[in-house]
Amino acid sequence: MPQQPEPAPSDPRPETLEVEISELVFQVLSQARNRELVPLGSAFPSPELFPLEVLSRSLSRAVRELDPWRTVEDLPPGSDRLRRQISLRYLAAGYNVSAEEIVVTNGAMEALNLCLEAVTSPGDLVAIEAPTFYAALQAVERLNLRAVEVATHPRTGVDIPSLAAVLERHPVKACWFMTNFQNPLGSLMPDENKQALVTLLADRGIPLIEDDVYGELYFGLRKPLPAKAYDRQGLVLHCSSFSKDLAPGYRVGWAAAGKFATTVARRKLMSSLAAAVPSQEGLAEYLQRGGYDRHLRQLRQALSRQQAIAARAVAKHFPAGTRLTRPEGGYFLWVELPATVDALQLHRLALSHSISVAPGHLFSADRRFSNFLRLSYGHPDDKRVESAIRTVGALAHSLIGKG
Amino acid sequence: MPQQPEPAPSDPRPETLEVEISELVFQVLSQARNRELVPLGSAFPSPELFPLEVLSRSLSRAVRELDPWRTVEDLPPGSDRLRRQISLRYLAAGYNVSAEEIVVTNGAMEALNLCLEAVTSPGDLVAIEAPTFYAALQAVERLNLRAVEVATHPRTGVDIPSLAAVLERHPVKACWFMTNFQNPLGSLMPDENKQALVTLLADRGIPLIEDDVYGELYFGLRKPLPAKAYDRQGLVLHCSSFSKDLAPGYRVGWAAAGKFATTVARRKLMSSLAAAVPSQEGLAEYLQRGGYDRHLRQLRQALSRQQAIAARAVAKHFPAGTRLTRPEGGYFLWVELPATVDALQLHRLALSHSISVAPGHLFSADRRFSNFLRLSYGHPDDKRVESAIRTVGALAHSLIGKG
Repeated sequence: MPQQPEPAPSDPRPETLEVEISELVFQVLSQARNRELVPLGSAFPSPELFPLEVLSRSLSRAVRELDPWRTVEDLPPGSDRLRRQISLRYLAAGYNVSAEEIVVTNGAMEALNLCLEAVTSPGDLVAIEAPTFYAALQAVERLNLRAVEVATHPRTGVDIPSLAAVLERHPVKACWFMTNFQNPLGSLMPDENKQALVTLLADRGIPLIEDDVYGELYFGLRKPLPAKAYDRQGLVLHCSSFSKDLAPGYRVGWAAAGKFATTVARRKLMSSLAAAVPSQEGLAEYLQRGGYDRHLRQLRQALSRQQAIAARAVAKHFPAGTRLTRPEGGYFLWVELPATVDALQLHRLALSHSISVAPGHLFSADRRFSNFLRLSYGHPDDKRVESAIRTVGALAHSLIGKG
Repeated sequence: MPQQPEPAPSDPRPETLEVEISELVFQVLSQARNRELVPLGSAFPSPELFPLEVLSRSLSRAVRELDPWRTVEDLPPGSDRLRRQISLRYLAAGYNVSAEEIVVTNGAMEALNLCLEAVTSPGDLVAIEAPTFYAALQAVERLNLRAVEVATHPRTGVDIPSLAAVLERHPVKACWFMTNFQNPLGSLMPDENKQALVTLLADRGIPLIEDDVYGELYFGLRKPLPAKAYDRQGLVLHCSSFSKDLAPGYRVGWAAAGKFATTVARRKLMSSLAAAVPSQEGLAEYLQRGGYDRHLRQLRQALSRQQAIAARAVAKHFPAGTRLTRPEGGYFLWVELPATVDALQLHRLALSHSISVAPGHLFSADRRFSNFLRLSYGHPDDKRVESAIRTVGALAHSLIGKG
């Protein structure tokens, strides 16, 4: 079986966009609640991949021993113990982020939204990737902002010269990028590109909201640095969480918000007061006792293996001319189908076969990626996944020429 | 000792206001993290009043038995089990709110903010009480809205004729009121006023965001109904939580959002995805096993007793001419000092004696209540509270004529 070619880099329109994406996103997300579906369209990896029992013991211990006063003291920026643990993990990755600039949030989603809110006003322009994670589109819509898309390479992420050109032409107030294992591309920006990105933005004083929720899910030899590691001016607001690699449903994330840390902490206080104390203390307890890195090693191995199986199945069963990313981490494949296949139609057909897929329409304000699919390989049931991919491939065949 | 007179009803200016309140609020809230202070200024009752041990056992049981798939399925509107329990409590109170219109949130604060966001656009006008809970002012500020204050009686709450006049004069897009034990007044709107409020707003199609976090803390014979009980059009967005009467720090609240329920659930999904599953399931487990009502009876008795002690101490130690509310629930006294006493100065002096108080400046956009204090009687250490009130009284004496 030959390795399939990767999709071409995106070439977005130069105009800014009004964003209205939500309806379709809600439809697709609501399928996450339906266990009957094979979840190739899911945004979450299988919960079977996580040490939920060990975590629940840490949580029980933490709440049993909790000083009652902590329940009213863990206001933003959040639990000191947890923030120290998070700060230690930055240090272990090779750079310094002090606990003082870390604000604990209700998952990365809240961190990202608060950061965007902290650095913009209604009507402002935000630079995003193309394709982009739909939550960025939703945040832009919710905060009454406008978006401009930047050309993004399926392997190396945001194209720096294209970004420079966008900044030349438009009054961009903030960028929202995923530097490591971008959703949906899986792209990984090379270190020198991250450095160039930070320099380019620092020259213009533009904040970067860096969504790094997949950073721990690398298949290479070492954890990729985020752009944050090169930030000297406090302009990078680095957002992550434990939801994608350890504790789904605990809703604990954070922003290392640089010089915006106080503003973000206050926005958190104003909009939802504090993060859940049992979740915060349970995670702090788990991290302090060790075992997270061992779990991550197993998780990475599982995902890497699952990627190979899913990619092989796509190569075998999808129509000729299909292109495919092979990310170095995360749990998504980005699949470019022949131009005449409409992914939304394919999504509906797959549903009627009890399979969910995420149509490319979700990942752009102008629904441009209409012949693309995001396929999750985050589920360890190989047979079920392979069989579902075979079915989706057959359905794609049936749609060729009907677009 | 004579019963002291209550403060006069408020008489707000008719103009609309730009809101910028946050700095002072953040200063006062940050004192909640300092255990050395006698917390007369605290927004939270003492955590010693809550069954945290029983709760922690419910939480441990719930996470131990948790189906892993629930961690990715409890998306908005939230845990079905918890929403059914909340719906049953509405039913027990004598009216029907279906689980379908309940959206679980990260505390009432998030519920209130999401509801306000769901029914307004930047620049819109919101009617609030005078004095009002500072979180309402912060939400108005954060969402780039404008506010208009409505005259509010210290015992009976929002004045309906005044509200009607405001609605006549201004294009009000939403109201945000606390109908039961308003913060800071402690006022309780009579049933007929609640009914008149709902009718007045229904005639004009104006949504009411009803903040009802203190509803369970009544000292009378039966739980007061919220305005929601009279709503026939789905225009009342009823927000509450378990934070003030059961589970501080768990960060579980909800909105029963009427016809806006889908919009609010989507805003929740867009801004912070989901509420913490351990907290949700732990509370559902606790509620299902019973014991909440027994705990609430004890809590109400404790607060009622503590109010008598605090009110007596204010009567004894505060300057002649001081006026005082005697709320029928909640845990705040609203104290009107002689006009020449500046509450902000008193707040600073009290801090230097290791006592926090909440100055009236916090409760209005124009800092009009400059000779008022909100005093919490939510802490059961009678001797410490009495001694602190005596000190604050002496400090108030020292400020008379220095304003």
